[in-house]
Amino acid sequence: MALYVLSRRLSSRSTSTTLLTLRFTSNYSSSSFREERDTFGPIQVPSDKLWGAQTQRSLQNFDIGGPRERMPEPIVRAFGILKKCAAKVNMEYGLDPTIGKAIMQAAQEVAEGKLNDHFPLVVWQTGSGTQSNMNANEVIANRASEILGHMRGEKFVHPNDHVNRSQSSNDTFPTVMHIAAGMEINSRLIPSLKTLHATLNSKSIEFKDIVKIGRTHTQDATPLTLGQEFSGYTTQVKYGIERVISTLPHMYQLAQGGTAVGTGLNTKKGFDAKIAAAVAEETHLPFVTAENKFEALAAHDAFVETSGALNTIAASLMKVANDIRLLGSGPRCGLGELILPENEPGSSIMPGKVNPTQCEALTMVCAQVMGNHVAITVGASNGHFELNVFKPVIASCLLHSLRLLGDSSASFEKNCVRGIQANRERISKLLHESLMLVTSLNPKIGYDKAAAVAKTAHKEGTTLKEAALKLGVLSSEEFDSLVVPEKMIGPSD
Amino acid sequence: MALYVLSRRLSSRSTSTTLLTLRFTSNYSSSSFREERDTFGPIQVPSDKLWGAQTQRSLQNFDIGGPRERMPEPIVRAFGILKKCAAKVNMEYGLDPTIGKAIMQAAQEVAEGKLNDHFPLVVWQTGSGTQSNMNANEVIANRASEILGHMRGEKFVHPNDHVNRSQSSNDTFPTVMHIAAGMEINSRLIPSLKTLHATLNSKSIEFKDIVKIGRTHTQDATPLTLGQEFSGYTTQVKYGIERVISTLPHMYQLAQGGTAVGTGLNTKKGFDAKIAAAVAEETHLPFVTAENKFEALAAHDAFVETSGALNTIAASLMKVANDIRLLGSGPRCGLGELILPENEPGSSIMPGKVNPTQCEALTMVCAQVMGNHVAITVGASNGHFELNVFKPVIASCLLHSLRLLGDSSASFEKNCVRGIQANRERISKLLHESLMLVTSLNPKIGYDKAAAVAKTAHKEGTTLKEAALKLGVLSSEEFDSLVVPEKMIGPSD
Amino acid sequence: MALYVLSRRLSSRSTSTTLLTLRFTSNYSSSSFREERDTFGPIQVPSDKLWGAQTQRSLQNFDIGGPRERMPEPIVRAFGILKKCAAKVNMEYGLDPTIGKAIMQAAQEVAEGKLNDHFPLVVWQTGSGTQSNMNANEVIANRASEILGHMRGEKFVHPNDHVNRSQSSNDTFPTVMHIAAGMEINSRLIPSLKTLHATLNSKSIEFKDIVKIGRTHTQDATPLTLGQEFSGYTTQVKYGIERVISTLPHMYQLAQGGTAVGTGLNTKKGFDAKIAAAVAEETHLPFVTAENKFEALAAHDAFVETSGALNTIAASLMKVANDIRLLGSGPRCGLGELILPENEPGSSIMPGKVNPTQCEALTMVCAQVMGNHVAITVGASNGHFELNVFKPVIASCLLHSLRLLGDSSASFEKNCVRGIQANRERISKLLHESLMLVTSLNPKIGYDKAAAVAKTAHKEGTTLKEAALKLGVLSSEEFDSLVVPEKMIGPSD
Amino acid sequence: MALYVLSRRLSSRSTSTTLLTLRFTSNYSSSSFREERDTFGPIQVPSDKLWGAQTQRSLQNFDIGGPRERMPEPIVRAFGILKKCAAKVNMEYGLDPTIGKAIMQAAQEVAEGKLNDHFPLVVWQTGSGTQSNMNANEVIANRASEILGHMRGEKFVHPNDHVNRSQSSNDTFPTVMHIAAGMEINSRLIPSLKTLHATLNSKSIEFKDIVKIGRTHTQDATPLTLGQEFSGYTTQVKYGIERVISTLPHMYQLAQGGTAVGTGLNTKKGFDAKIAAAVAEETHLPFVTAENKFEALAAHDAFVETSGALNTIAASLMKVANDIRLLGSGPRCGLGELILPENEPGSSIMPGKVNPTQCEALTMVCAQVMGNHVAITVGASNGHFELNVFKPVIASCLLHSLRLLGDSSASFEKNCVRGIQANRERISKLLHESLMLVTSLNPKIGYDKAAAVAKTAHKEGTTLKEAALKLGVLSSEEFDSLVVPEKMIGPSD
Repeated sequence: MALYVLSRRLSSRSTSTTLLTLRFTSNYSSSSFREERDTFGPIQVPSDKLWGAQTQRSLQNFDIGGPRERMPEPIVRAFGILKKCAAKVNMEYGLDPTIGKAIMQAAQEVAEGKLNDHFPLVVWQTGSGTQSNMNANEVIANRASEILGHMRGEKFVHPNDHVNRSQSSNDTFPTVMHIAAGMEINSRLIPSLKTLHATLNSKSIEFKDIVKIGRTHTQDATPLTLGQEFSGYTTQVKYGIERVISTLPHMYQLAQGGTAVGTGLNTKKGFDAKIAAAVAEETHLPFVTAENKFEALAAHDAFVETSGALNTIAASLMKVANDIRLLGSGPRCGLGELILPENEPGSSIMPGKVNPTQCEALTMVCAQVMGNHVAITVGASNGHFELNVFKPVIASCLLHSLRLLGDSSASFEKNCVRGIQANRERISKLLHESLMLVTSLNPKIGYDKAAAVAKTAHKEGTTLKEAALKLGVLSSEEFDSLVVPEKMIGPSD
Repeated sequence: MALYVLSRRLSSRSTSTTLLTLRFTSNYSSSSFREERDTFGPIQVPSDKLWGAQTQRSLQNFDIGGPRERMPEPIVRAFGILKKCAAKVNMEYGLDPTIGKAIMQAAQEVAEGKLNDHFPLVVWQTGSGTQSNMNANEVIANRASEILGHMRGEKFVHPNDHVNRSQSSNDTFPTVMHIAAGMEINSRLIPSLKTLHATLNSKSIEFKDIVKIGRTHTQDATPLTLGQEFSGYTTQVKYGIERVISTLPHMYQLAQGGTAVGTGLNTKKGFDAKIAAAVAEETHLPFVTAENKFEALAAHDAFVETSGALNTIAASLMKVANDIRLLGSGPRCGLGELILPENEPGSSIMPGKVNPTQCEALTMVCAQVMGNHVAITVGASNGHFELNVFKPVIASCLLHSLRLLGDSSASFEKNCVRGIQANRERISKLLHESLMLVTSLNPKIGYDKAAAVAKTAHKEGTTLKEAALKLGVLSSEEFDSLVVPEKMIGPSD
Repeated sequence: MALYVLSRRLSSRSTSTTLLTLRFTSNYSSSSFREERDTFGPIQVPSDKLWGAQTQRSLQNFDIGGPRERMPEPIVRAFGILKKCAAKVNMEYGLDPTIGKAIMQAAQEVAEGKLNDHFPLVVWQTGSGTQSNMNANEVIANRASEILGHMRGEKFVHPNDHVNRSQSSNDTFPTVMHIAAGMEINSRLIPSLKTLHATLNSKSIEFKDIVKIGRTHTQDATPLTLGQEFSGYTTQVKYGIERVISTLPHMYQLAQGGTAVGTGLNTKKGFDAKIAAAVAEETHLPFVTAENKFEALAAHDAFVETSGALNTIAASLMKVANDIRLLGSGPRCGLGELILPENEPGSSIMPGKVNPTQCEALTMVCAQVMGNHVAITVGASNGHFELNVFKPVIASCLLHSLRLLGDSSASFEKNCVRGIQANRERISKLLHESLMLVTSLNPKIGYDKAAAVAKTAHKEGTTLKEAALKLGVLSSEEFDSLVVPEKMIGPSD
Repeated sequence: MALYVLSRRLSSRSTSTTLLTLRFTSNYSSSSFREERDTFGPIQVPSDKLWGAQTQRSLQNFDIGGPRERMPEPIVRAFGILKKCAAKVNMEYGLDPTIGKAIMQAAQEVAEGKLNDHFPLVVWQTGSGTQSNMNANEVIANRASEILGHMRGEKFVHPNDHVNRSQSSNDTFPTVMHIAAGMEINSRLIPSLKTLHATLNSKSIEFKDIVKIGRTHTQDATPLTLGQEFSGYTTQVKYGIERVISTLPHMYQLAQGGTAVGTGLNTKKGFDAKIAAAVAEETHLPFVTAENKFEALAAHDAFVETSGALNTIAASLMKVANDIRLLGSGPRCGLGELILPENEPGSSIMPGKVNPTQCEALTMVCAQVMGNHVAITVGASNGHFELNVFKPVIASCLLHSLRLLGDSSASFEKNCVRGIQANRERISKLLHESLMLVTSLNPKIGYDKAAAVAKTAHKEGTTLKEAALKLGVLSSEEFDSLVVPEKMIGPSD
């Protein structure tokens, strides 16, 4: 059967994908097979793999996207954490300790990523994630059986009766979604954003005395300091961190204990709270049992909420990175106020050119995060009755966004922001050529006359001072005492 | 000039829009005109309108979308509030009290919506909202002048020097965006959601003893109570309220005092805090001055954040309304578990048919809210330097979403949820025909045998009990004591 | 009853919306009422309005969004066209000609927009648009009755039996959606885009000899002509027109004749083709009957397709408008290559500043169009069985996008593109300061040496020529003969 | 240096990703290194890899997302095709044939996917794809050097001067984007959709005589045949194929020959057309040179357009799959009209349950495609001047959507649609219980009386016939002759 499958995989694709398929199948192809069995009957599974019948069926039924579409690793690891905790709690409720401890040991290996190669299923499977839950159950059951000296496929440790005891795919998968997202937020996204915030803030301080032209509508405006400009970016990132943190309370709610439809049928009272406590202890994060298990299975609003925070952060970072690349544009025909670090040759044809590549990587990530947000929203809005069956795509998109935002923020900080220098000469030149310092004349000569001065200078290509003197609205001394950019960067006393 | 404009408007459109244009122009057409003037020179304005030269120019320059596209009324009213507060604070800083009080009186009229007809500008104007700020300044200046016995256009009260004193479009427009959104959230959205939540909750209690079939993957699953099912919806709405409330801290931050680029040039120290306090007093909402004015002008992340909460609520309500229409499907060929109120004849061709029209209106609103969210995200991500110039579309979309979600939640509650009845007979019939009560056999006979019972009953079209007895896995008494739906709606002790 | 409704409307809203509600209700409030009747029983309707019982019920049941949310006028007018054509065809199938002609006359008034005030229903109603179909049936029936000397409400001409004869809401509403969209595309969008294309093209020709610096990654790059740059924009708009035109074949398919579920029950064979032909004749557009009526009722993929074309155009115009505002940035501290027309004073605080306001209006429209596209996609993806019930939101969003794109393209062309001037002095200065002309040395001295020249000039702030001579890679004559920007704007022979 | 990098990679990540990183780095870690060099200086590269200095720098500078984020394989293969064609054409323009032929041979290996392991760069790099172009240049140069008996890193075949001759990243990357997309559309998407269309069509024919209840608003409606229902799905897929095909003309336009900014500097006249012809010959697809190279570099509207078609297909398939799962809901408490194939055990807790998993995988894909469409739109709208720098994310998202839609359509066809059976017994039972057959009484007794019959039957739980007789509106014989579902599935003669 499996041989048939392999050959089918090799023949059913156009030539353009044959090699990809080859590499994929080689990950689990094998010279020998063993028989595994589920309620559908027997099926051949590669001998060197720990998974069982249901995983094998899913592999054959969902040939969608190839190996890059595998369930994200944080989900696999979270299954390890959850199954370990479930075994621990199940022992309190009567699970044979020998079996329980073996499950815990096997699950720990999953949690550490040691068994990643035994999780071949893609995101595009059943919408409840059932098959990935069974993948975890089967791998852990076989591994635990081995630990206890039994054979793979023998079901000495049973994937359903032991590993999945008191659980259902319908509560385990949302639980691992929340565990994985909670961990990624705390271990990857927030640290990267905090570092980015700190570096932007230090730039804001470093640049606090550099007065520069402001720009509104992309047009010259009244001055501000470069430090003030960066303080805006700093605040955006600060608020971004607040935003994602404010979504954590709903993310820390775990569905476990709801079993199939949210009622908790086939669990014991208190199982839900105990398992949440065990996960909290294992992860050092304040997970709790969900207040309402029906909501926790049938909806994934918590993911839409968190994705909304990421979408806001993406909008923020798009703005920041756009500004930085435009302020760094040039070297001679752009704005040229910032000097960005040179990390690589910029072009294969234009020597000497250095591009804002970190800004580009970051803004591309922002576009992807905005797109993932729509996918999550569409998926989450389409729940039916007791179960939302867009779980894997919702999980995959959020974890994708978390990973990309975390990594690209870190890269942007390290390879771009940290090394930004102000081009003080250029900044000063632009500032003093500007017409918009005229605003400081408003309180003295009124709006209409100030406008006339600016228009005259603009038309005749002269300085503001020349125009003011020509129009006779101010003396030279008055002009000099009024037009002082350094006095224009805050309210007056 | 204005005559030319009017005739241009009448002739430049294809016939299909002539009448619309006619109705529009008739709103401000007039038999007589007065001359108004700005730095661009003189321009004719309808005598019976309070607006001035800059408003008139915008009308002529932005013939986009017609009157449905006018700046939303909450923005106009918020301008009234802000300009009233600004006059009050400006008097503390030396504004002539006669003029200040007249401004306050005129602004109050704007705040009350009495001068709505004098705000003809559309959303699709300059991206800073400058022209709507000038519209407010001009209307209030002319009205205040009248109050003091002067003529329109005479500028006894000056739109810039008096009404806009210490302000810039760049800080007023984001300020009114926040005021308008804060007020709509508190006065329209949250009350409607709370009412919806309360009614769903009361239904959840009303239905707490009705055991029904659960459905996962749209397939029959283990039972739950109808009350439990509604408790999921209740929780979704409860969390939705929490979500929008959690975004308010950033929404309550006002940009006012930042003037043109965020520095506060041309204001006095403390002006920003005073005006935020005045707005807070006027609106009874805890507005404060923005921590960082550069962020407040250059970014509108607060709107993306709040829109993210609305997007989450839309995903929730889409799910709830979808469930209700499917559970209410029928009358004879659907699920038929719920009886929805009949509010109108359902079809022009099929007599006796009653449709879930409130669900349909609500889910259409949800689709619109998701779309508006993308528009807001795109707009907010496109700020340049010191100013985001997508302000009107961001404001318009958020206020649109707020209004629609608030109104449709209220309509859904009143015209649908409140009147939902359980079809107890149908619910009971479906429950007892179901195969999925087999799950309660798992702890007794194990997963594999239970599966065999269900498969047998399914194949042979018999009841579970008949199948169990046939397969000899249980006695009749055992079956009856195990399969009790009422015992399947929670964990065991 | 209606009095009760009015008072309910006035009391049920927070104070902040009272005035809006007042203005709204005044549109249909009346000192006197007449009784209308449907299968639900009698209901009071304002005497001066032509609508009947079902419209009145919808008004009361869907108090969502207020008058700016009314069904878009192109839908109302399309109902006029359709009902006129239906009467014409129904006379061929036996409808009393007296009644048929009166219906045609009344429907013509609707088609001309003369009865717009009698169409008060909002978008947020039943998802099939049934209530707007009944609104049309009722208004036309009452108006036709009046034409024939009968009273409103008397049903001498019956809204269902006569006006809606052989029709269902389920086929009329998608039909008017297609008629309205087809007409707006042809009368509003395409003409505006063609004008914009022509003007961009003429600018491309006008600027064909102006050599300027190119910019990639926002960084200085090899030169091109300003005309070439504009030819890119021209091509984008040209392809945009092609894109929307390529969607018309599916848009020209009319659902009429499918009646309730697509089968055509209660119509006669050939009715569908005859009515499509009548609509084609009436509109001068090549409408045909839909190839498959089941698809035409249950899905609105044609709208997603057309919206996809608009979304592409929005992406194009966002790019073009962004470029133009950045190239026009300044006047002194930006790129300053383009001089944009001054249409209005730019700022209430900064005299002399002129902003790219038309670019801003256009890019805001683009953001809205992208958002509407998502709303349409979500709505269209959510059809169930024989009927998609997101019809009004899908229609409303597409018509919104069409109107805004058409109007803003026209405004952008007239008030911006047409008046753009090249700042030749500035363009020339930037070009000759640039380092990137070094690329023309590649074929002569190789990539690595060319890079060294550019780096040297950059580091030392000198010209390329000085650097080249210093490094000894070229003679002065060689440099001058190689570095000729005018020779760098195309491939070599 | 590389050792430092490796250790940095291992230490800089939180524990949770260590293993992933390990697996990644092990793909290119090596016990030995060689020195490669670019304009930035020397850098250590793993000896067993063919890439050079610029690839290595990118690896170090863009540590974003890990190996799942590598540039999609179709891009890598398209680079092989393009570079092969470029060498071929360059030989016509004077490239040394020995070198040219070696490049062609090496490029062919890339095109066949044999060198995939030498393309380690992720999507999140420079927005022009420069680094992937250099990766291709470096790998092909080193491989070609080896073919000619030279050492890696020796640059006997030079990545820039030979492999990239007459090219720039700015024209190669958009060219490979178009090649890859064009090939995937033709080899993966369209064949899968055609198969799905054919199978749906055969089901439509198979089911053509099965009369069933129609459903509108999810409510019972007039009947149709199951074949008619499937004909709607068939038409949706048919139009989907037309839609994607209609976007191909813009996709077949290749940017190659535009070089850095679109002018074609450093190429020869005719190079662009020759290379397009070579690609067309190589791929058997009608690629042509882009009409306007400025548009081809600065915008990616062609991708937005094609993505718009995919978005429409996603909306279609979401509808189809939703219908199928709802029509297949049950087995006893749902609609139960369709019997879906059982491919795997459905639940880990509920034996005997079979879920519509293929529908779930497909609808999840649809959500992802909608999200990717937004990412593409955002990316494409953000071009600046002569170059859009969101190329990799645009390419990656479109190729992702193409792959997923193609694969999941194939899986859905094979594992679901092909095996769908009609549950004739259930369909018949529902049909004859329905009240909506009453519609067939309309022409005989009028709308109002027909409504009364339906309402009576509904209220009293009787059949329509009983109600009609009770109300005395029809005789038994009249009823039987009028109410014949088989006569209700089309217009009358």
